[in-house]
Amino acid sequence: MASHSTHAADYLISGGLVATMNGKRELIEDGAVAVKGQKIIWVGSAEQAKVQVRAGTTIDATGQAVIPGLVNTHSHLAMTLFRGLADDRPLEAWLARIWPLEVKYATAQNTRIGTQLAMVEMIRGGITCSADMYWQFAENIRAAREAGFRMVNGPAMIEIVGPDGAMSGDLEKKARDLIEQYRDDPLISLCVQVHSTYTATKEMLAIAAQLSEEYNLLFITHASESKSEVETVKERFGKTPIEYLHAKGLLGARTLLAHCVHLRDDEIALLHETQTSVAHCPESNLKVGNGVARIPAMLKAGVNVGLGTDGAASNNDLDMFGEMRTAALIHKGVNLDPTVMTAEETFAMATINGARAFNLGNSIGSLEPGKLADITLVELNSPNVTPMYNIYSHLVYAVDKNDVRTVFINGQLVMQDRKLLTLDEESIKARARAIAREMAAEAGQ
Amino acid sequence: MASHSTHAADYLISGGLVATMNGKRELIEDGAVAVKGQKIIWVGSAEQAKVQVRAGTTIDATGQAVIPGLVNTHSHLAMTLFRGLADDRPLEAWLARIWPLEVKYATAQNTRIGTQLAMVEMIRGGITCSADMYWQFAENIRAAREAGFRMVNGPAMIEIVGPDGAMSGDLEKKARDLIEQYRDDPLISLCVQVHSTYTATKEMLAIAAQLSEEYNLLFITHASESKSEVETVKERFGKTPIEYLHAKGLLGARTLLAHCVHLRDDEIALLHETQTSVAHCPESNLKVGNGVARIPAMLKAGVNVGLGTDGAASNNDLDMFGEMRTAALIHKGVNLDPTVMTAEETFAMATINGARAFNLGNSIGSLEPGKLADITLVELNSPNVTPMYNIYSHLVYAVDKNDVRTVFINGQLVMQDRKLLTLDEESIKARARAIAREMAAEAGQ
Repeated sequence: MASHSTHAADYLISGGLVATMNGKRELIEDGAVAVKGQKIIWVGSAEQAKVQVRAGTTIDATGQAVIPGLVNTHSHLAMTLFRGLADDRPLEAWLARIWPLEVKYATAQNTRIGTQLAMVEMIRGGITCSADMYWQFAENIRAAREAGFRMVNGPAMIEIVGPDGAMSGDLEKKARDLIEQYRDDPLISLCVQVHSTYTATKEMLAIAAQLSEEYNLLFITHASESKSEVETVKERFGKTPIEYLHAKGLLGARTLLAHCVHLRDDEIALLHETQTSVAHCPESNLKVGNGVARIPAMLKAGVNVGLGTDGAASNNDLDMFGEMRTAALIHKGVNLDPTVMTAEETFAMATINGARAFNLGNSIGSLEPGKLADITLVELNSPNVTPMYNIYSHLVYAVDKNDVRTVFINGQLVMQDRKLLTLDEESIKARARAIAREMAAEAGQ
Repeated sequence: MASHSTHAADYLISGGLVATMNGKRELIEDGAVAVKGQKIIWVGSAEQAKVQVRAGTTIDATGQAVIPGLVNTHSHLAMTLFRGLADDRPLEAWLARIWPLEVKYATAQNTRIGTQLAMVEMIRGGITCSADMYWQFAENIRAAREAGFRMVNGPAMIEIVGPDGAMSGDLEKKARDLIEQYRDDPLISLCVQVHSTYTATKEMLAIAAQLSEEYNLLFITHASESKSEVETVKERFGKTPIEYLHAKGLLGARTLLAHCVHLRDDEIALLHETQTSVAHCPESNLKVGNGVARIPAMLKAGVNVGLGTDGAASNNDLDMFGEMRTAALIHKGVNLDPTVMTAEETFAMATINGARAFNLGNSIGSLEPGKLADITLVELNSPNVTPMYNIYSHLVYAVDKNDVRTVFINGQLVMQDRKLLTLDEESIKARARAIAREMAAEAGQ
């Protein structure tokens, strides 16, 4: 058969149910995906693969679903260190507890551990790409680079001086240096971020607009997360956060807004007109008591929506399967309509639509030849996925993150048969626990 | 040390963080629980256990949480066979798909498999006791008995002839026979059930009231699950389902009502006055588009509320950790208040309050000497529970069902180190898949 081979591959993932999430949403039973270098070079049936692909290593995916790696469009990764430290309380009380600890403990050394812990959890849960917005971003990017994890990150401007002193220095220069450094990086997508319209100066928004334009960078900010935020911004600027961003030239196809819980119809229409994307974080919005974003209305209006976990301090896990489930359930319940947010639509939000929200729709988010090889293999043998009638239904309503078995990022195997290959899980957990002990003592817990 | 022993035990679970859920909600770090026969005979510190307990077998629970087995207050267990067969559609379309299949396939042989599959999933997820309402209840009870699983079950009266012909025969006699048979059973708690006020005759409600009174049995029914149900019952009887049940003498301390999504303030007050309990099924209520029950209002009014998964066809898993998370999140979001449904309160709903809803508050639901030994051990080592500050926070917001490691029911080890000891998981899954293939072919899937 080797003589008939037309494709030489490093890996052939063969025998699983391939959910391509391509334009036709093709499902291939007993399918196969071939990977060479960083990319997917071939997708077809396992039968065809026998004659068309010659691979260095074959991975048997029998009894598994082969899906695009999940895309987490919003998080504060190193906040894994604060997981469960401040639950069930109002925002002010939450900040009063977390903020003094962040000032003292968000050192580069510690955020590296927190970010590594987040990546351990995310890879175990089939997530191959995540946004991050946190102090010590340069260090956190390095940690992602080392772990072979795809990250969307960049300076996050906020009108306070953080533990890394980042906001007091020449932020524009720091940002430009980092942009140059990671310009052609295969894993890191630099972006420019502003915490929110109520915590940033006009100058910060102007810098963000300038850099986004100049380098064609994604711009990320929190917007209309809470009612009180909307009120504050209206009082200060006479505009809602969405209107204010629009006035500053910051809505558009390069913009990703996290949360968007409190939007009027005309604001939703404006997001669509400007091709602005939304990162929907249902569990965080619920847990912090902010409410339920009007996602079915956004989808109807044609707004592109991805899904995000937000940080572990307001979730408390980084589980995109859980986030899909919550998203699919909550909008049905709140709208008293079981037909909104179908499983397939929700799965698209966690894959291809998340990729589009990052302006990476051409390179990740689906299993197609030419795309980067971010691939997750999900075992379909646990009782919670037995029996199976519909793969999208299972991926959204029934799969558990622990059903994830093998993960590729950028063509590299980062987890095989549940063994992490690029991160030392036990050592990272031990170090995270040591940091937590110090913080708990400080907080009098 | 043996000479100082005062308690001879079969098992000593030693070294874990024991969350007793007793009246004082005591947490014992480095704690221990001793089991003899069916019961817990001693709870204390691992240090005290060394001198006060002599055990046949010691189970090392270091790094684990030792919690009361979770109590699932509402389900239709054998519906695991229909998991994911009919999602994202209105109730009528759901029924149109499921009902013809049930008529044909809900044989005793098949519901046994479906119930066994449900028990596999539930034990793996730390659930030690579940309600069940389904066709072929006598067979399903036998399956639970054989698996060593604690079940609350009994005839479910409905004004249609089911696949087991149960509803066409002398239901009262069948019920009485079963009640006599399981009267002193250590695992099976017989109850009497009516599907709902809109699907049962007056005679069925009268039989239920009579049997519940005569044998001091729990009475279970669905009530006020959907808006249309409430409207239908009001049109037919001039009363809401709650009012109608009250008029029939069917509210009270022996009554457990599933769902209760659409209640007025005075109906909530009536549940409290009559000491009627509620089985809250948040994920099912959301998925089917029925809405969000007013649980914070019920808790404030003093109503006892347990948690339930409902059947796998409207969830789609039987995961009480997921159900706790959804319950704790949804009410915060819908009420725009992060302080409602604290983690501890939510965990109580899944344990001691669920036990109370079953009128089993004196025998299960907490880890106390004299109670039956239904105990779940949860490993606290996975990334999603690292680091840890607060055990209740983790149990509700961060623990995954796959973190469950070991489970006792009624003093019997039913799962040890993730190995099921009373159910043949692979064989059950294979048989469930075979039934599903037949049904999918029939349904043209």
